[in-house]
Amino acid sequence: MSKTTFSKIGIVGAGSMGSNMALLFADHDFQVSIFDVNSSNIDETLPHLKKQKNSQNISGYKDYDKFVSSLGSNNEPKLFLFSITHGSPADEVLKSLSPYLKKGDIILDGGNEWYLNSERRQREMKEKGVGYIGMGVSGGYQSARRGPSISPGGEEDVLEKVMPVLEKVAAQWKGKPCVTRIGPGGSGHYVKMVHNGIEQGMLGVLNEAWELLFKCLSTNLDELAKIFEGWNEAGELKNTFLVRIGAEICARKKPTGTGHLLNDIQDKVVQDADNSEGTGVWSVQEAALRHVSAPTITSAHFYRIASAARGERLQFFDMIGGAAAAKKQHLEKNEERAEFIEDLREAVYCAFLASYCQGMNLIARTSKDEGWGVKLKECIRIWRAGCIIESEYIADLLEDVFEKDKGIMNVLLAEKIASEIQRTMPALKKVVLRATEWDAHIPCMSASLEYFKYCAGKHLPAMFMEAQLDYFGAHSYDLKSEGAGEVKKGSHHTEWQPA
Amino acid sequence: MSKTTFSKIGIVGAGSMGSNMALLFADHDFQVSIFDVNSSNIDETLPHLKKQKNSQNISGYKDYDKFVSSLGSNNEPKLFLFSITHGSPADEVLKSLSPYLKKGDIILDGGNEWYLNSERRQREMKEKGVGYIGMGVSGGYQSARRGPSISPGGEEDVLEKVMPVLEKVAAQWKGKPCVTRIGPGGSGHYVKMVHNGIEQGMLGVLNEAWELLFKCLSTNLDELAKIFEGWNEAGELKNTFLVRIGAEICARKKPTGTGHLLNDIQDKVVQDADNSEGTGVWSVQEAALRHVSAPTITSAHFYRIASAARGERLQFFDMIGGAAAAKKQHLEKNEERAEFIEDLREAVYCAFLASYCQGMNLIARTSKDEGWGVKLKECIRIWRAGCIIESEYIADLLEDVFEKDKGIMNVLLAEKIASEIQRTMPALKKVVLRATEWDAHIPCMSASLEYFKYCAGKHLPAMFMEAQLDYFGAHSYDLKSEGAGEVKKGSHHTEWQPA
Repeated sequence: MSKTTFSKIGIVGAGSMGSNMALLFADHDFQVSIFDVNSSNIDETLPHLKKQKNSQNISGYKDYDKFVSSLGSNNEPKLFLFSITHGSPADEVLKSLSPYLKKGDIILDGGNEWYLNSERRQREMKEKGVGYIGMGVSGGYQSARRGPSISPGGEEDVLEKVMPVLEKVAAQWKGKPCVTRIGPGGSGHYVKMVHNGIEQGMLGVLNEAWELLFKCLSTNLDELAKIFEGWNEAGELKNTFLVRIGAEICARKKPTGTGHLLNDIQDKVVQDADNSEGTGVWSVQEAALRHVSAPTITSAHFYRIASAARGERLQFFDMIGGAAAAKKQHLEKNEERAEFIEDLREAVYCAFLASYCQGMNLIARTSKDEGWGVKLKECIRIWRAGCIIESEYIADLLEDVFEKDKGIMNVLLAEKIASEIQRTMPALKKVVLRATEWDAHIPCMSASLEYFKYCAGKHLPAMFMEAQLDYFGAHSYDLKSEGAGEVKKGSHHTEWQPA
Repeated sequence: MSKTTFSKIGIVGAGSMGSNMALLFADHDFQVSIFDVNSSNIDETLPHLKKQKNSQNISGYKDYDKFVSSLGSNNEPKLFLFSITHGSPADEVLKSLSPYLKKGDIILDGGNEWYLNSERRQREMKEKGVGYIGMGVSGGYQSARRGPSISPGGEEDVLEKVMPVLEKVAAQWKGKPCVTRIGPGGSGHYVKMVHNGIEQGMLGVLNEAWELLFKCLSTNLDELAKIFEGWNEAGELKNTFLVRIGAEICARKKPTGTGHLLNDIQDKVVQDADNSEGTGVWSVQEAALRHVSAPTITSAHFYRIASAARGERLQFFDMIGGAAAAKKQHLEKNEERAEFIEDLREAVYCAFLASYCQGMNLIARTSKDEGWGVKLKECIRIWRAGCIIESEYIADLLEDVFEKDKGIMNVLLAEKIASEIQRTMPALKKVVLRATEWDAHIPCMSASLEYFKYCAGKHLPAMFMEAQLDYFGAHSYDLKSEGAGEVKKGSHHTEWQPA
C-alpha cells in the first residue's frame, strides 16, 4: 500500500481547538495553513499564534483559493483538518471547499460530529476520490496544544495514510501514541461521542461530591483542593484528570488576589441547551436506541439541562418555599467527617465506574450492530493520556478486562469489575443516604447506585410491571418456572379483564 | 368544507388491537372489513370475532384486492385503519395497498408510529390525494373494544372528515368523546408517544411501590390489593387506571385456584429491548433532543432494559455476592407501618406528577418547535377516560393549569403544581431514604426526587462543573454578579492552565 507522507496541513477553523492544533503541528515541523470562514477570527488569532515558538511554520488565510494553493501544487495530495462546529457549519465548509478538492486529498474532521453525518460525508467525498476521516480529538485545548488523544475512523487505506501524521502529534503514554485506528465509517466520531458521554457522567458525579464537601460539610476551597489532590495521588482515583483539575480549580484565586475565583462563577451549564455541544444529547439518544442502560450518563445530562434554565430554577425555588437546598451539616466528631470523606472518595470511584461501564457497553453494542470491530482495549489505551476521562486505576482494570475477553458485551460481568463494584457499593449507598438526608443534589450518584442494584436484581419487581403490561397490552409474559429465558416476548397471556 | 360520512372501514392488522377495534366499529354500525398480511391471523381471529355481537358487520379478507373492493365502488372514498407494527411493517403494508388507493381515501394509522415516519407517509400519500392521519390510540385492547382515547394528527381537511367517525367510537368523559384534533403533521403520534413515556414513568414508580410493600413490608397480595384499592378510591391517586388494575392484578388467583397468579410471572419486561415497542425509546431520545429534562421517564426506561436481560442479572447477582436484593423489614409498630404506607401513597403521587410534568413539558416544547399549536388542556381532557395514564386528581390539576396559561412551557412553574410538589416532596424524600436503606429498587422515585431538587436549585454545584468545562474546553462562564442570565454561552474565560 502506498504511504503518503504529508508535510503540510490546512486547518479550517481558528477557534481554541484549531489554533492550538496549528501550534501542535507547527511544533512537529508541519507547514500549517490556517483558515476560518469568519476572517476576523484569523485577524484575532494569528497575532497570538505568531508570538509562539515555531510560528514561522504557520500562515493564516481568509479565502479558500489562497488557503488551498498554500498547501501545494495541483497534483500534490493535500491534508485538511476541520476544527469546526458539527452539523451544518461543517457541511457549509465542505461545500465551499469541495471545488478545490482533488483525488487523493484527505480531510480529518476533528470536530465532535454526529457519526451519521461523518458517514454521509465519507460517501460524498469518496465519489471524488477524497478521503474523509471522522476523528475524535479529546483533551480540550491544552491537549490540542501539547498532544491530544485521537480516535480516527474511516476507510482502511485512508487511515493508513494519516496514521503516521497522527502518531507524531498524539499524546504519548508509555512511549506509544494515544491514537489508534478505531474502525470504518463513523466509528471514530462515535467513540469520541461516548467518551464525552462518560465524561458527562464523571463531571456530574464529581460535581455532586464537590457540593457535599463544600456546602454540606462547609469545607473551605483550599482544604477542598487538598482533598481532591489527595484523591488524585493514590488509590482508585489516582491520576484522574477531572479530579486533578478540580483541585486546581478549587485552589484558584481571583485575578485580584482576594478570594477564590470559583465563588464568582454562575451555576449553570448551557452548552447542551444551546446546541453548541452535541455529544451529550447523542449519547443519551444512542443509549436508548441501542438498548444499553446508561442512567449515570443520562442523569448528568438532564441535570445540566435543568441547570441551564437558571431563571426558572430561581422561580421554582421561591414557589416551593426553598425546601430543596443542600443543608449545612455538623458532623459530631472529626473521625465521622474523615470517614464520610473516605466513603465519598469510594462512592465517586464507584459512580465513575458506572459511567465507564455504561459507555463501554454502548461502544460494544454499537460496534457489534454496525460491524465495526472496535477494539475496546485500544479505546482504553488511547484514553490513558491527553484526554478528559483519563483515570489510571479504571484504565488498568478495563484494559485487563478487554485483554481477557475481547468480545465482552456487558462489562459488569467481568470478574474484576464485579468485585470492585461489590467492594465499593456500600460506600456509594452510605453517601446516597446521607446526601438524601441533607437535601444535596445527587442525580448521578443515586442513579449509579440504582443501576448497579437493578443490574444485579435476582428478583426485580418487574414481575408486577410485566403483569400490568399484559393486563392492558396483552404483552404476554414468561413463567418463573421457565428459568432466565430469552429477551423475547413471553408465551403466556392472561385475560385479566375481558375486552 | 365537504364532510364525508363513512359507513365502512377497512382495518389492516388482526392483532389484539385491530380485532377489538373491528368489534368497536361494528358496534357503531360500521361495515368492517378486516385484513392481515399474515392470512393465518385472519383464520385465527375471525371465528372469535364471529362469536361476538354485531359480528354480522364484520368480514375477513386475506388479499388486498377483495379487501379493498369490499369497502365500496371505485369512486367511493374509502377509510382504512392500520393497526400494525411501526416502521417497516407499516411501510410494507402501505406499499402493497398503494396501487388500490384513490384520491379521497383516508388512512388512519392507529399504530404507535415514530412521528417522522407519519410525516413522510403524509407527504407521499398527499401526492396521490390520499389523506393520512397519524393517530394515537390509547387504553390497550380493552379500550380498543369499548372506546379508546384517540389523538389524531394530520391535515385539517382530512381531520375534518374523520372526526365524526372518531367521535362515535372514542371513550366518553362527561358526555364528550375523548378525541381531539391534536394538530398537523405527526403531532398525533407524537402526543401518543409522550403519553406512553408518561405511562412508562408511572409504571416504573408503581412497580417500586409494589416492591416496597410486597418484599420489604411482607404485605401479602390480597392485602396489597386492598391498599391499592384504597389508593384508587380517594385522594391524590383516585381513579388512577394503573393503580386500579394493580389492585386487580394483586388479587388475581391462578386458574387452578390455588395461590396468586402474580407469583408465577417472570420479572422481565422485554418490549423495548426486542424493538416491538418504540415509544419508550423515542420518548427518551426526544427528551434529549428537545432539551427537556425527563429523568423519571428515562430511569423507568433503563430499568426496563436491564430487567429484560434476566440471564445477565442472575450472573451479576452471584458475582457481587447477592448484596443488592431488597431486604425484608420489621417495622416496630403498626402505626409506623401505616405511616410508611401513607408516605408511600404520597410519594407515588409526587413521582407520578414528575412523570406527567416531564411529558407535558416535552409536548409543549416540541409543539412550539414544530409550530403545531397543540392544546395541552385538550391532551389532558382526552386522557380522562379510555387511557392508561388516566388519573383524575392529576388531570384536574393540569386542566386548570392549562386553562389559565395556554402557552406555559414549564409546568413546574404553575402555582398549583408547585404547591403540590412542595406538599408531597417530604413524603417522597422519606420513602427514598427508607427504600435506599432497605436496598429496594427505586430508580424512578429517586430520579423524581432529584429532578424536583435540581429544578428548584437556587445554588447548584453546577458552578464547579462550569469551571471544569471552562478549564479544558474554554466553554466560558457567567459571573454570579450577572444575575440569572440567559441560556447562552457566558462571556468570561479563565486560562486555568495555559495551553
